[in-house]
Amino acid sequence: MIDNQISNPLLITSVQNPKIKQLLELQQKSSARRQSGLFVVEGQREVQRCLDAGYDLDTVYVCPDLCKEPFEASRIFAVTPYVYEKIAYRGTTEGIVATVAAKSQSLADLHLREDALVVVLERVEKPGNLGAILRSADAAAADAVIVCDPLTDLYNPNLIRASVGAFFSVPTVACTSEECIRFLREHSFHILTAQLQDSSLYYDTDMRSATALVFGTESTGLTPQWREAAEAHVRIPMLGAVDSLNVSVSVAILLYEAVRQRQTQKG
Amino acid sequence: MIDNQISNPLLITSVQNPKIKQLLELQQKSSARRQSGLFVVEGQREVQRCLDAGYDLDTVYVCPDLCKEPFEASRIFAVTPYVYEKIAYRGTTEGIVATVAAKSQSLADLHLREDALVVVLERVEKPGNLGAILRSADAAAADAVIVCDPLTDLYNPNLIRASVGAFFSVPTVACTSEECIRFLREHSFHILTAQLQDSSLYYDTDMRSATALVFGTESTGLTPQWREAAEAHVRIPMLGAVDSLNVSVSVAILLYEAVRQRQTQKG
Repeated sequence: MIDNQISNPLLITSVQNPKIKQLLELQQKSSARRQSGLFVVEGQREVQRCLDAGYDLDTVYVCPDLCKEPFEASRIFAVTPYVYEKIAYRGTTEGIVATVAAKSQSLADLHLREDALVVVLERVEKPGNLGAILRSADAAAADAVIVCDPLTDLYNPNLIRASVGAFFSVPTVACTSEECIRFLREHSFHILTAQLQDSSLYYDTDMRSATALVFGTESTGLTPQWREAAEAHVRIPMLGAVDSLNVSVSVAILLYEAVRQRQTQKG
Repeated sequence: MIDNQISNPLLITSVQNPKIKQLLELQQKSSARRQSGLFVVEGQREVQRCLDAGYDLDTVYVCPDLCKEPFEASRIFAVTPYVYEKIAYRGTTEGIVATVAAKSQSLADLHLREDALVVVLERVEKPGNLGAILRSADAAAADAVIVCDPLTDLYNPNLIRASVGAFFSVPTVACTSEECIRFLREHSFHILTAQLQDSSLYYDTDMRSATALVFGTESTGLTPQWREAAEAHVRIPMLGAVDSLNVSVSVAILLYEAVRQRQTQKG
């Protein structure tokens, strides 16, 4: 059953094994991720996307009973189904979990088209929301997602899980709001903030030139710094009783409005 | 601290209490919900929305240390913080959980505008997705969400949680696909299915008259029955590497395109 690539890897049978303990810590603690510069990726497709995006695998853990096509890595361990169940954060049955070296990207690393479309998130709290936003940003071919003053680290496993691999295809940068505003101005972005007050309907707002769509948290919205930096405020009409949308849904609606305008109103 | 409305309610101190055991069963088992006709709602705002929508509270459990504004109910129990922690499915700290009598709605109960906008979901699997869809349907003032051949019951606590109360404001009906197609035809709906094959771009498709937006599962899409029933197939362009959107995001993008068309292209 075991592929040549992983012939005779060391078999780990206990969750008390120091490697397994370290892996679980990397899943659970942002401090462990920060200190080691490593994060955790689970699943065949995710590990493949991670490699395609030029990340380096640190260590691969495979459960030979489940994983028929393991990846090459300098360090590879086999684990028993019992151990795999403990380390499979997402509950996948694909039999592969890897630790990966983080690659921190800065604003200077971004390669932007002339009419770039970027998403800016101020103080996003929930890793799952950020992951969902990356998935939509990938689908709408956004050039980057910039996370300002983040309250979550970018390597949280819930984020990577919710992004369904888009974490590896959409350039994602963490920086301060100040740095981001300076960068957007230097690159002549049209800054649009999503907010209800003093705003225009989003579909009445031109998004065809270089556009940054800026979103605050669901609970407190944007800080004054961003409201003042904006060329325009845009709102999604709230026509119901609950009067709110999930932030990842709001991002998707605005991103696809930009796509629609760019595809239908060319020239 | 305890309001007059709940002066001297019976205090439950143990999770072994039969009422608490029944409550936990209602949270965890759809069979228990089906047999009793009851479901569980947690949180001040949610219980209020539930009452506003005309549902009847069966029993209310309040933790007086946390809940300052309890609701009136014929049966009310106080619980200790320890017991509350065990019954607070969503982990809220608002100190109120209620069991509520289900109200099943049928297609015949729907009151539809002439240019109604409804969402149809075939075999939706994840309660969280359905809840998120209800939230977007509320915001876009959709007339109804119709769930065909559902694989989850409509009273799953994850669904109610993700809907942020929209479960109580958006009419939601479960039925078979056959019943739904017959209903939509009788009411002269324009049936649009979201699918990639043989489809037009969604923003090139007229959604101003009575429109049913039909979505399949993320994994297998729609059954042939729906593909054949459709007047047109529409797709959201996938411009990235991952090539998929969350179904709740797809629903929101199409709903808001209908809103945009109806608001901007009147007459």
